[in-house]
Amino acid sequence: MKIRTLRILVLLLMSSVAVALSQEGEIAVRKLLADQVIAWNAGDVEGFMKGYWNSDSTEFVSGGNIVRGYREVLARYKKTYDTREKMGKLEFAELQIRTISSKFVLAAGVWKLHRAKDQPWGRFTLLIEKKPEGWRIIHDHTSSAN
Amino acid sequence: MKIRTLRILVLLLMSSVAVALSQEGEIAVRKLLADQVIAWNAGDVEGFMKGYWNSDSTEFVSGGNIVRGYREVLARYKKTYDTREKMGKLEFAELQIRTISSKFVLAAGVWKLHRAKDQPWGRFTLLIEKKPEGWRIIHDHTSSAN
Repeated sequence: MKIRTLRILVLLLMSSVAVALSQEGEIAVRKLLADQVIAWNAGDVEGFMKGYWNSDSTEFVSGGNIVRGYREVLARYKKTYDTREKMGKLEFAELQIRTISSKFVLAAGVWKLHRAKDQPWGRFTLLIEKKPEGWRIIHDHTSSAN
Repeated sequence: MKIRTLRILVLLLMSSVAVALSQEGEIAVRKLLADQVIAWNAGDVEGFMKGYWNSDSTEFVSGGNIVRGYREVLARYKKTYDTREKMGKLEFAELQIRTISSKFVLAAGVWKLHRAKDQPWGRFTLLIEKKPEGWRIIHDHTSSAN
């Protein structure tokens, strides 16, 4: 094999690895969000929370509020959505996944709750990090449409 | 010089470089935000906008809205804050800078407008990227306190 051919093969291999790595985060994050929707719609808030990093540093921002810590974020969800009626049926839309590095992804989109009496919705921006235990949300900024 | 001493020196040098690189983003982002406050409080919306990436991809999310594109974000600011009274005096607080990589920083905090008749405030999450022209906001999620 000529050196030039070998060089081209190595470059092709490297770019394939780069593409695979950048897709890895996107695929993992799409699965994370899909799993969250399934858990939510089964009334399983703890299951939904598995998408978040289990850490005191995990942050949930909404309106003028910030909640810090996995337990605190879970407590907020449980308090705000204490019945299946309030939970409604969750839908994520307009999903946009931005690979920042091999370890970080920014995901943005629309959240919507289909409920009997109303349909609250808004937008979210999530910073998601690859942790030893898997991809996890470490910062969530969620806002509501008026 | 012994090999062991050399090794320690190289490690020290490498960790200093790593610290310097991680501080570079934080220092640049603090300056970016401080410059935005100065421009805003001088009634200079164009100057304020210099913190954003001049690109069609730049995103500004608030409530249920997303605005895409530097020109569109500028137009939104100019429309929402068309007088000095509406602009008020901007203050950023509870600033939290997270270095993601040598090229990305996540900045979160509180925004507040001191105005004659009201004091609107809320929270923001910014993804800031090191571009050839400098550090620029590429995604802004801003929410209002109720």
